[in-house]
Amino acid sequence: MITMNENISLDDVVAILGRTPPCLTALLEGLPDTWVTATEGEQTWSPYDVIGHLIHGEHTDWIPRARHIMAGERRPFDSFDRTAQFTQSQGKSLSELLATFASLRRENVAALVGMNLMSADLSRTGQHPELGEVTLGQLLATWVVHDLDHVGQIARTMAKVYADAVGPWSAYLSILRDRQRESSP
Amino acid sequence: MITMNENISLDDVVAILGRTPPCLTALLEGLPDTWVTATEGEQTWSPYDVIGHLIHGEHTDWIPRARHIMAGERRPFDSFDRTAQFTQSQGKSLSELLATFASLRRENVAALVGMNLMSADLSRTGQHPELGEVTLGQLLATWVVHDLDHVGQIARTMAKVYADAVGPWSAYLSILRDRQRESSP
Repeated sequence: MITMNENISLDDVVAILGRTPPCLTALLEGLPDTWVTATEGEQTWSPYDVIGHLIHGEHTDWIPRARHIMAGERRPFDSFDRTAQFTQSQGKSLSELLATFASLRRENVAALVGMNLMSADLSRTGQHPELGEVTLGQLLATWVVHDLDHVGQIARTMAKVYADAVGPWSAYLSILRDRQRESSP
Repeated sequence: MITMNENISLDDVVAILGRTPPCLTALLEGLPDTWVTATEGEQTWSPYDVIGHLIHGEHTDWIPRARHIMAGERRPFDSFDRTAQFTQSQGKSLSELLATFASLRRENVAALVGMNLMSADLSRTGQHPELGEVTLGQLLATWVVHDLDHVGQIARTMAKVYADAVGPWSAYLSILRDRQRESSP
């Protein structure tokens, strides 16, 4: 195993990145619309919306930014459009979106592995348009945590469909109170 | 589709219950220990611990309580042991636990479907040892939300492994601040 600086290892990163699409496909494929189109309220995203958002990241965020850093570019990364999925997913079934995400992710994990990164590469820096200087290691850790954040969001959004139906058991089910409406999605 | 009272449908319930084991297997099987044994701190559970907890629920909680209600029992349900996994999982690999969970869940979903519940059955009541009167519909909704709560917990616990490694991106990754240490697991 290549243990890297920045407290991450490429093996650990790839292990999660490769599992997110099969995990989400196993959870969402063929699921009734009750679950797939649910949101946590206005301005929040459904599981369907989240898959579109993950696809947009595969196209424009992670690997393009990793290449930008490795090329030594000094201009900031292009900004990431957090709502692109509302136009780009139009007319597509959830099943199509899941297949697209899985396919793009396979290509991008292969691209990441193909970069043959050395430990020292993880300290290379790029300029984030809002956050300033960031390292390649931080970018890869963020890719992983971003996946897990959205897995958690999907679980939470679906759980809240039954917020009332659980009756008194609500007291034991903390997920029903996570990210109450004062928070952003 | 059988739409039931209590705002749940048995089809929607079964759709989630059947997908939780393949979702968790896709996420966790073969994953490095970095992720599998991580916790959110003392008195919180690792993904490994959570799978043991889900197994204990399959043995003693959901179907036994549904049968208790359908049998018209007036005594309270047996209490559920929330820490049984710390003894029962001992010596077992995560892979074994995932296979056990999947197998028990298949049997229990088959048992649920085999009950041939009618809409009116969901209003039948039982006595919870702490919460008092609950309905069968609330029990089934709770089974679903309990699954999703633990899927979210696993995603959150693994995300926090990289809480520092993401650097300035932490500002955008709300999952890293969910259930800060003042909360219970």
